[in-house]
Amino acid sequence: MTATFTAAGLAQRFGLDVMGDGEVAIEGVATLAAAKPGQLGFLANPRYRNQLASTGASVVVMRVDDAREAPMTALVARDPYAAFARIATLFEPVADQPAGIHESAVIAADAVIDSSAHIGPFVSIGARSHVGASAVIGPGCVIGDDCVVGAGCELIARVTLVTRVRLGQRVRIHPGAVLGADGFGLAMDEGRWLKVPQLGGVVVGDDCEIGANTCIDRGALDDTVLEEDVRLDNQIQIGHNVRIGAHTAMAGCSAAAGSAKIGRYCLIGGGAGVLGHLEICDQAVITAMSLVTHSIREPGEYSSGTPLMDNRSWRKSAARFKQLDKLFRGMRGGDKESS
Amino acid sequence: MTATFTAAGLAQRFGLDVMGDGEVAIEGVATLAAAKPGQLGFLANPRYRNQLASTGASVVVMRVDDAREAPMTALVARDPYAAFARIATLFEPVADQPAGIHESAVIAADAVIDSSAHIGPFVSIGARSHVGASAVIGPGCVIGDDCVVGAGCELIARVTLVTRVRLGQRVRIHPGAVLGADGFGLAMDEGRWLKVPQLGGVVVGDDCEIGANTCIDRGALDDTVLEEDVRLDNQIQIGHNVRIGAHTAMAGCSAAAGSAKIGRYCLIGGGAGVLGHLEICDQAVITAMSLVTHSIREPGEYSSGTPLMDNRSWRKSAARFKQLDKLFRGMRGGDKESS
Amino acid sequence: MTATFTAAGLAQRFGLDVMGDGEVAIEGVATLAAAKPGQLGFLANPRYRNQLASTGASVVVMRVDDAREAPMTALVARDPYAAFARIATLFEPVADQPAGIHESAVIAADAVIDSSAHIGPFVSIGARSHVGASAVIGPGCVIGDDCVVGAGCELIARVTLVTRVRLGQRVRIHPGAVLGADGFGLAMDEGRWLKVPQLGGVVVGDDCEIGANTCIDRGALDDTVLEEDVRLDNQIQIGHNVRIGAHTAMAGCSAAAGSAKIGRYCLIGGGAGVLGHLEICDQAVITAMSLVTHSIREPGEYSSGTPLMDNRSWRKSAARFKQLDKLFRGMRGGDKESS
Repeated sequence: MTATFTAAGLAQRFGLDVMGDGEVAIEGVATLAAAKPGQLGFLANPRYRNQLASTGASVVVMRVDDAREAPMTALVARDPYAAFARIATLFEPVADQPAGIHESAVIAADAVIDSSAHIGPFVSIGARSHVGASAVIGPGCVIGDDCVVGAGCELIARVTLVTRVRLGQRVRIHPGAVLGADGFGLAMDEGRWLKVPQLGGVVVGDDCEIGANTCIDRGALDDTVLEEDVRLDNQIQIGHNVRIGAHTAMAGCSAAAGSAKIGRYCLIGGGAGVLGHLEICDQAVITAMSLVTHSIREPGEYSSGTPLMDNRSWRKSAARFKQLDKLFRGMRGGDKESS
Repeated sequence: MTATFTAAGLAQRFGLDVMGDGEVAIEGVATLAAAKPGQLGFLANPRYRNQLASTGASVVVMRVDDAREAPMTALVARDPYAAFARIATLFEPVADQPAGIHESAVIAADAVIDSSAHIGPFVSIGARSHVGASAVIGPGCVIGDDCVVGAGCELIARVTLVTRVRLGQRVRIHPGAVLGADGFGLAMDEGRWLKVPQLGGVVVGDDCEIGANTCIDRGALDDTVLEEDVRLDNQIQIGHNVRIGAHTAMAGCSAAAGSAKIGRYCLIGGGAGVLGHLEICDQAVITAMSLVTHSIREPGEYSSGTPLMDNRSWRKSAARFKQLDKLFRGMRGGDKESS
Repeated sequence: MTATFTAAGLAQRFGLDVMGDGEVAIEGVATLAAAKPGQLGFLANPRYRNQLASTGASVVVMRVDDAREAPMTALVARDPYAAFARIATLFEPVADQPAGIHESAVIAADAVIDSSAHIGPFVSIGARSHVGASAVIGPGCVIGDDCVVGAGCELIARVTLVTRVRLGQRVRIHPGAVLGADGFGLAMDEGRWLKVPQLGGVVVGDDCEIGANTCIDRGALDDTVLEEDVRLDNQIQIGHNVRIGAHTAMAGCSAAAGSAKIGRYCLIGGGAGVLGHLEICDQAVITAMSLVTHSIREPGEYSSGTPLMDNRSWRKSAARFKQLDKLFRGMRGGDKESS
């Protein structure tokens, strides 16, 4: 049942060079620290170079410079981490998800399900929705009205597409994610909140990935949009009418408020927030738990917050923070008086 | 299938004045920037006033001062955004949710379901729970024991009411929300955590809205309470025994820890936190990602955190923050010595 | 139907001393402020000592010093809160969860379900997974392939174990939690993200508790690990390959990024974040919404952030924060020049 490959076979399949014995057999992958004979590891970060001597790995993916002194078979790659990622997919267990609709699923009469799609148990699919070729809709997913799931998409389990959500191809969505819920649109009207109807949808480009329990609200009038290859980690909140550029990645617990526009190739750190109606240019990096309070027009790294301190020292600094303006004014005043 | 209204008809229905041709037909709503002929837009924020000249909208809701120069039919409102919100509901697609219980639903023998309620597929409802008139329980919802869902409530899909959750009328809950889970009550006992039973419930007032994947824990002994017309966005965490006053709105990813008491008409920004056992008075505004570390007794706006900076500058300020107390002490010392 | 106990009976059952009438009957528990005759309260925090005179409670659990002047029957405990927690379990409603598999559940042919386990409606269980004795799998749970649910575990409702999740005994998981989703592993490869397969699993020790909508990703190569008696509140994000030591508790909305290692008996405050690959020693306390940006090697309390201020004052301090380095340099320069 376990797949076995030779180093030479892997090299050929992924366009790598072999240095050393190409016939050594590989049955799995592991970190250098944990690898045993018969396993393949990788060396990407030079910090771990000293593990080459002690690892049990039979084959290691590495750069050519490292390969010269490697005591085992080396697969030589310009980018060892990317090469390893490709090789590792060979050892990923594949769940049995045959084409067809589970007998418990509840599908609207006018929904269109490709015959090669897999629809799991306890799935419901609403009116006028489409599920494309080879798509996998795992157990407990809810797809509402007027949704499109593109070819090769995978909704792992318990994913909700509320309404008017259109997924491109090969979009992968993890359990608990909710796409297309009402945006948070409210008007105060004579002392009570008036709900503003959310008439837009959500458009997700090809090859996006959406993490577990992440939410993407649908737009108020226009759509909320993720361009292609956007990667969202878990527990993220995307407000209505946000637009996220291609190849941007957001780490866990980050959030973008309504109508924020985030560029391409941005990296948004864990727990970071972007206020509504701001624009962030391409290739901006926001460090963890920073709050973006104004638009960003230059690529680069941005931060807010204060460093971690022991609580006693922090209390002193925090107290001074409250006095900052007064203290500086006082000093300047003092300077003036003494001059 | 598309609804059509005349400007004059809308004016009459919503108590607005018409300026211009009242017979123009409206088939949809849009932003001024995106609107095409046959659509209705709105002008609330003066910043967008210049869009009046270029919009394709056939009708625009606006204030009387703007209407005088408008090149299209105007619907005149004191509060154009609220008027627009009301008009837009006419164009909201309505899902087909007929009265009755889906054959797959599992309902406890002693649960009471109003005959006008809609119970969707894969719903389970526990012992002694009640579902009121015209309530909609969408697919995959779990309602535990001893819950009450008031008339006109809508649980969109995959909502969980764990136990002892009592909803007023017209409460709307989005997918993935969990109400009535155990509060986080622990006692350290001889080196191990001892779980404190959570015997209270959750009470939610009329017209509240609860966002996707938001959690509201049930109380330890008394109840966790949301008064009427409270609006919670997505991914919010409300601890046990919290009380939130009427008409308060909390934005995405905000949180209130156990036994916090938040007043009426408060606005809690995205990602903001409220520590446990604090009190916040009515009409307090907490800006995004601020942490409320002490009770608030005066209405007004409150903040914590530092502004966003480029990372290089931020590192310098952050290093200085750590030294603040020492630096100020040194300067004062220096002042003293020099005087 | 309501259970009734005498003070003397409770004392005997839990190893406490009685002072006063041991025959008084108890039918419920409450806070001192809300308790009525027939109910039992507790006094743990000296701040509430003055409530002893006014409470309606017939019996109060308290320390011996307080008991001497108590106007009602006292149950004397060294740790009144822990003793109360134990007593309160007697009054917790018990849901009816009989052994057996609900007829709607979908179980893989090679899954092994103990005959004493309860499998609720709309549950799916994947290939090669095991559910142990007396475990309770509530409605709508999804258990994927190769999972183990230990004896006495309780998955309340709508919990997802994606794949390769192994729970010890008596683990309690609240609705919406997702364990074993893909870690957020990405490699940038010629301008596009390449997904790194996540081949590890999740291991959860005995007596852990996982809050509602909390996520624990599975490891990339090795496992993500929670040691025994770890307590996670709601909305928490645990990245791949994180390790959390025994008896550590994390409050709502906190997060630990990939490969972080948190020690034993730590307390992580609400909304706090731990960056990836860091180590936190045993018995560290992180205050709410702090960001751990470096490893912690000494037990103690740690913080970041700034205190809450009225917005006007905060704006001044925030502006000064940006100038901190310049201001300090200027002053030092000024000092030098003037000397």
